[in-house]
Amino acid sequence: MNPLLWLPIIGFLGIILAFILYFYIKSRPAGNEKMQFIAGLIRKGAMVFLRREYSVLFLFILVVFLLILFFLDAYRWQTAVAFLSGAASSVLAGVFGMVAATTANVRTSWGAKTGGQPLALRIAFFGGSVMGLAVASLGLFGLGIFFYFFGNTASARVLSGFAMGASSIALFARLGGGIYTKSADVGADLAGKVEAGIPEDDPRNPGVIADNVGDNVGDVAGMGADIFESYIGAMVASITIAASSSMIYGAAVGKYMAFPLIIAAIGLIASVVGIASMKIFERISPAAALNSATYVASILLFVGAFFAVKMLYLPMNLFWVMLIGNLVGIAIGLLAEFYTSGSPIRKIAQASVSGAATNIITGLAVGLESVAAPVLVIVVGTWLAHHLAGMYGIGIAAVGMLATVGVTMSVDAYGPVADNAGGITEMAGLGEDIRKITDKLDALGNTTAAIGKGFAIGSAALTALALFSAYSQAAKLSSINLTEPLVVIGLLIGGVIPYLVASMAMKAVGRAASKMVSEIHRQFKEIVGLLEGKAKPDIEKCVDIVTSAALREMVLPGLVAVVMPVLIGFLLGREALGGMLAGATLSGVMIALFMANGGGAWDNAKKYIEAGNLGGKGSDAHKAAVVGDTVGDPFKDTAGPSMNILIKLMSVVSLVLAPILVKFLR
Amino acid sequence: MNPLLWLPIIGFLGIILAFILYFYIKSRPAGNEKMQFIAGLIRKGAMVFLRREYSVLFLFILVVFLLILFFLDAYRWQTAVAFLSGAASSVLAGVFGMVAATTANVRTSWGAKTGGQPLALRIAFFGGSVMGLAVASLGLFGLGIFFYFFGNTASARVLSGFAMGASSIALFARLGGGIYTKSADVGADLAGKVEAGIPEDDPRNPGVIADNVGDNVGDVAGMGADIFESYIGAMVASITIAASSSMIYGAAVGKYMAFPLIIAAIGLIASVVGIASMKIFERISPAAALNSATYVASILLFVGAFFAVKMLYLPMNLFWVMLIGNLVGIAIGLLAEFYTSGSPIRKIAQASVSGAATNIITGLAVGLESVAAPVLVIVVGTWLAHHLAGMYGIGIAAVGMLATVGVTMSVDAYGPVADNAGGITEMAGLGEDIRKITDKLDALGNTTAAIGKGFAIGSAALTALALFSAYSQAAKLSSINLTEPLVVIGLLIGGVIPYLVASMAMKAVGRAASKMVSEIHRQFKEIVGLLEGKAKPDIEKCVDIVTSAALREMVLPGLVAVVMPVLIGFLLGREALGGMLAGATLSGVMIALFMANGGGAWDNAKKYIEAGNLGGKGSDAHKAAVVGDTVGDPFKDTAGPSMNILIKLMSVVSLVLAPILVKFLR
Repeated sequence: MNPLLWLPIIGFLGIILAFILYFYIKSRPAGNEKMQFIAGLIRKGAMVFLRREYSVLFLFILVVFLLILFFLDAYRWQTAVAFLSGAASSVLAGVFGMVAATTANVRTSWGAKTGGQPLALRIAFFGGSVMGLAVASLGLFGLGIFFYFFGNTASARVLSGFAMGASSIALFARLGGGIYTKSADVGADLAGKVEAGIPEDDPRNPGVIADNVGDNVGDVAGMGADIFESYIGAMVASITIAASSSMIYGAAVGKYMAFPLIIAAIGLIASVVGIASMKIFERISPAAALNSATYVASILLFVGAFFAVKMLYLPMNLFWVMLIGNLVGIAIGLLAEFYTSGSPIRKIAQASVSGAATNIITGLAVGLESVAAPVLVIVVGTWLAHHLAGMYGIGIAAVGMLATVGVTMSVDAYGPVADNAGGITEMAGLGEDIRKITDKLDALGNTTAAIGKGFAIGSAALTALALFSAYSQAAKLSSINLTEPLVVIGLLIGGVIPYLVASMAMKAVGRAASKMVSEIHRQFKEIVGLLEGKAKPDIEKCVDIVTSAALREMVLPGLVAVVMPVLIGFLLGREALGGMLAGATLSGVMIALFMANGGGAWDNAKKYIEAGNLGGKGSDAHKAAVVGDTVGDPFKDTAGPSMNILIKLMSVVSLVLAPILVKFLR
Repeated sequence: MNPLLWLPIIGFLGIILAFILYFYIKSRPAGNEKMQFIAGLIRKGAMVFLRREYSVLFLFILVVFLLILFFLDAYRWQTAVAFLSGAASSVLAGVFGMVAATTANVRTSWGAKTGGQPLALRIAFFGGSVMGLAVASLGLFGLGIFFYFFGNTASARVLSGFAMGASSIALFARLGGGIYTKSADVGADLAGKVEAGIPEDDPRNPGVIADNVGDNVGDVAGMGADIFESYIGAMVASITIAASSSMIYGAAVGKYMAFPLIIAAIGLIASVVGIASMKIFERISPAAALNSATYVASILLFVGAFFAVKMLYLPMNLFWVMLIGNLVGIAIGLLAEFYTSGSPIRKIAQASVSGAATNIITGLAVGLESVAAPVLVIVVGTWLAHHLAGMYGIGIAAVGMLATVGVTMSVDAYGPVADNAGGITEMAGLGEDIRKITDKLDALGNTTAAIGKGFAIGSAALTALALFSAYSQAAKLSSINLTEPLVVIGLLIGGVIPYLVASMAMKAVGRAASKMVSEIHRQFKEIVGLLEGKAKPDIEKCVDIVTSAALREMVLPGLVAVVMPVLIGFLLGREALGGMLAGATLSGVMIALFMANGGGAWDNAKKYIEAGNLGGKGSDAHKAAVVGDTVGDPFKDTAGPSMNILIKLMSVVSLVLAPILVKFLR
């Protein structure tokens, strides 16, 4: 048997494990009737959104499929099929993860009631792990199959189609999901908490289910598609670079091309062990359990990769590069945690005492400042990787960072499950004690969310840099020369795009949220007895409004991201397109860090005050902090994360485009 | 006589004209005793700040002077002297402009009382014109003299010392002035208007004089130093590019080198006529008068430049390039006006109805969006300029934009004079009717300020691009190659610097303003009868506090700007330094546009509500809009404008450094 077949087989085994995990969760009791009813609404809302999102996407995917089929210079149908498969894998991972998350939320809530914190933690984490395993396994399985057939220097370009498929879904999932989650959140909060004065997650609020749906479509499906894209992008970039370096690697080029997938396979196995190890640590503390799972997986990856390098007779530098990539990911996550906790949030809280304006100014300053350290980490990592293993090293560093995606994504997806469990506990009235448990798990989820966001940006940045290198090789550019005005022009145009997309995303949330507010107002006014708890709100109407709005609003920024590389490539040429990618990556990474960290800091500054500091809940400082939190919402959950996708998607589109540009332009 | 001598002579004549204008203003009556007393306080505060600022700067200038003298590879003392002269010219222009502005403010106020609006307008505008003429004339005079002695291909590098001197002063003037003006403004408003509930410019407020001083040190001295730097930088970049293109231009290289100065000389003459023409138009309307002055100067510049190109037998393309540069400046100004008026501000005002958070979100979205169009204009201008006349064309476009700086700077400096006149009118109690006149002039000043800010950013961007080209030639780089990781690393590091400096500037305003607020609190509490108007506030203490704070806070960000190019140049090499400049220019221009336009839009959204829309003054929408305005203050007047200087200064430092890097690094 060809040993390369082991790669998709390991991926396939991972998928089976994800199914087993899913059935384990599904077998748990789902609580009382009221809980099941609420959970049913959330799941239905989430599934409706996904279905409608994917049907909008279907048209887009079809058009691009046909474009590839008719206009690519070579490997037409192969690339087109790879594109479809990449898109399908991302969709499958999203649907699977969502089904699991919306199954686990209510069982977590009931688990807290019947088995206390350890059981609730386990269900929530395993619920997230389905998504984690799905992302890692489907990626390895799909890409592994294509690699088996097209894993040689000439045909490896087919794989970029797979990456482009994944990226296309990711863009719309992140944008649509991001707009959905924040407009539902802001809308429900404004009309319910602020105006009507009813508590969060109160069942009388017609928008509260939409809010809980948003957690799933944004933080599970959106985040999953983002990470899936990075995972695939990093591998494809490394393979492309290796394939075009056959002059350097000689007969060993095949090993170099397979190496990223081998690392991913080891990472998947390591992640499975990590996830399982969580059961050992769950009795210590929830935080310890999640951290240990991550560390166990990382250490196993290192050990496995070390032996893989030895056994394949590859240079030991590749091991170090992979290690560096993994450490860069951890470092950026920890930096994100620092800026969204500790002294920065105390400064913002302190500034809230003198009002909303100083809260905003301080939060913006924290966000702006927080850009420097993570970029420096990326810079050092990139430099070391290149120093040790050339351009290929940059790709392998990204792969190293993402190899344990099975466990990091599990931790990420745990957050929204815990958040949902809290909501269900509240809405079903399970009582103060149970709510305390879910609140604690939710608080942990907020920390992991901050780390996860940092990790997502870091991996996007490293992947984009790797894809940028892959593009320059695929476009046969010996130089992207900034003393050429066209390159500078490309750089400036590229730099502007993230600003435009961020602005569109922010405005989209504003518009969608205000539609939601009007609808809730209408229901409070027209449905007699609603506020007294005697009548039922029209939940589906709210879900429908925010679904339609999110889907409509995601189209324009999405098209910008896809069309711009084509436009610049054909109008200004390959080299200018390289400049554009560099400019977009620069602006995109920095805006992403600025917004994610600023938004997270505002959020936690509010929570810090709510914990009883500086006057606590209801004080003027708290009111000011709520303003900051509301501004931070679209920053950290809509506009910021969209940047990750934007820079990767534009790079991938360019990578697919490169051979055509080489052929038709000088 | 060598015809090149005419250049400094025309500059010298301009200086004399500025003096004549100054004495004309000084000869006007300065109003009653109370007005003179208030004006005296403002002038004293402004002069104290300048004196202390320049004494901090003296040390910095001395160190750099010695560094140049001892470490430059060649032309040591010449470059060092040029550096000193550039710094001295900027200081002289600043002091002269400030003296004139603080002379004109009180006379404008009295002019409104004795001669009505036309007389007040004329005095305010001529007060600003002293600054305008000083900037243009001192620049032409100083650079003209150095060009006379070092205007050949080998020694032209001495001129970059002059530019670096101008840039060094500019950085600290913009930063220090920007921190001063906004911390005084925010501090006085918070403690006076918001907390104590007394009106703006009320004489009982101990911070009100500091606020008026701030208008001068920020908007006159700071803005003047910024524009002066662009003016010099654009010329020096063009001369440097021409000097290193002697292979292309052959024997005509001398003409190409002199051409930027010739354009500047024509522009100065055109500006003088434009300023004088304002007397003809002043009876129509204030806005018409200022616009006409600008257009007259532009048209005269075009005519003069056309004949200059003809008579020097230079290619007609250079005329077109100059024209394009001038039009780019006008276009960016108009775009700035659009984003800070019209539909964007109505949207922000509308969003204020649902609270501070939506006001902030919408304002940020407007700011983010406003980046695209001006950058596109710059991109098109740069492309056309390069297409028509190569890299030299980019420099000439910048020179064309800045040639009529005499009149554009006059319009800019008019604003703070009118603003001050309003303050004096209020504090001296000249009555409602007079205040109406000064309010109208002040409102016009707000429009010109928005246009002026756009122009300042546009000229900084074009100058930075020209300096970037000059650097690549001086550093003998045939390529700044983005496929080299070190260049990408440079790019990323460069991209981070503007974020860091912006964050520092924002935090500096916050700290300084809160010191001011505490002091005003103390005085309200400790000085018996102050709030009843029976006792006098300790004005000087406030001025002193904000002066010290601004000077202390400007040092760190200033050092970052100077040290980074040296560090990157020596650690990572010439090419990476080129990448750093590109990254810094990219981030810097975009943050500058984002902040200037966002801040201006917030300001005017508040004014739109104050004009009686959406509930008017005192409504909830107004309160929300005040929050946006306060956030916008450090955006548009501190952090945003600092970006202009940052990108130019780093380019100029690199230009001076280039020959050393060529010599000592491979």
